[in-house]
Amino acid sequence: MNHYPASIKKVIHSLSRLPGIGSKTAERLAMHLLNAPESDVLDLARNLIDLKKNVRLCARCFALSDGDLCGICGNPTRDTAILCVVENQADMVAIEKSGAYTGTYHLLQGLLSPMDNIGPNDIRIKELLEKAGAGTVKEIILAISTNVEGEATASYISERLVPYAVATTRIASGVPVGGELQYVDQVTLKKAMEARHAV
Amino acid sequence: MNHYPASIKKVIHSLSRLPGIGSKTAERLAMHLLNAPESDVLDLARNLIDLKKNVRLCARCFALSDGDLCGICGNPTRDTAILCVVENQADMVAIEKSGAYTGTYHLLQGLLSPMDNIGPNDIRIKELLEKAGAGTVKEIILAISTNVEGEATASYISERLVPYAVATTRIASGVPVGGELQYVDQVTLKKAMEARHAV
Repeated sequence: MNHYPASIKKVIHSLSRLPGIGSKTAERLAMHLLNAPESDVLDLARNLIDLKKNVRLCARCFALSDGDLCGICGNPTRDTAILCVVENQADMVAIEKSGAYTGTYHLLQGLLSPMDNIGPNDIRIKELLEKAGAGTVKEIILAISTNVEGEATASYISERLVPYAVATTRIASGVPVGGELQYVDQVTLKKAMEARHAV
Repeated sequence: MNHYPASIKKVIHSLSRLPGIGSKTAERLAMHLLNAPESDVLDLARNLIDLKKNVRLCARCFALSDGDLCGICGNPTRDTAILCVVENQADMVAIEKSGAYTGTYHLLQGLLSPMDNIGPNDIRIKELLEKAGAGTVKEIILAISTNVEGEATASYISERLVPYAVATTRIASGVPVGGELQYVDQVTLKKAMEARHAV
């Protein structure tokens, strides 16, 4: 890396700070960018600047958004009577990709984690309760990971939702589709067994 | 990817055009950049713009450079009486990393390849002969890959150098240090055997 001109060294340094990109890969990418059409490289640079300038949180669901409202909250065909509570953008995107949901979302932007000093006031629970009290929401689906923090957050939220006139549900746990039974862990199998249904 | 705001989609698209970065990795990098300090992202963008603006070829050796002369040609301690002919920047960097060379370079920016329509006028052979004729160069080392195009280019150059008063040498072929003999190919072994030396 010391054998490159400063302009190339700087790009290699910036790129190698990205996750999963070591100095060798950064070197290779910098060499590619040098030979790539100027417009491609300037597009990438401009898009990076716009990313930091334009992206904010949706005022309603707290998803990443270019404007005040995200594409989902701004879409009149989405059902506002159902609210799906997720931890973050990635989980929301996963559910959107499944195509199984046409309601709206509420992003907590975190999970309760006393170890990391994250309490109920640090994630968007207050805003969720406000929505629950507003009267338009009929069902709140808790689509939260089933790890320790996720379970704690889900049980805290469902307790706080008891006084409100909304149905609180939790997405099902069970054997992944296409998964082989012998490799499924015992807790999941137990949950799948308990949640068995008639065929 | 359709589930992201346009500003994020554009970054994912730009990143996924880089070699070795698929849409999944691009998504992960974009999410990282969103959460990264603004200064880091703007630095990366600025460095990319500078890369295209500042980097050119050294007027003497045709290596990548920020200015008219590259760091090596601009360094008065490098020996200008020895010229190492390499195919490209990557080969030059590999030799620099070895620390075994204190002379200067001449980058061909390609190899002869009739199949790809690359002839002697498409790589920097004319400039090399001019340097050989200028009288300051005592030795020209051909450090060119030992594949078909490399061998053809090396033999073409050494033929053209015959009329000049310079010693033309070729870096040694042989068994890689740390390599096991049984895995070395026959041609390399033959070359290593021919070039054996007293211990």
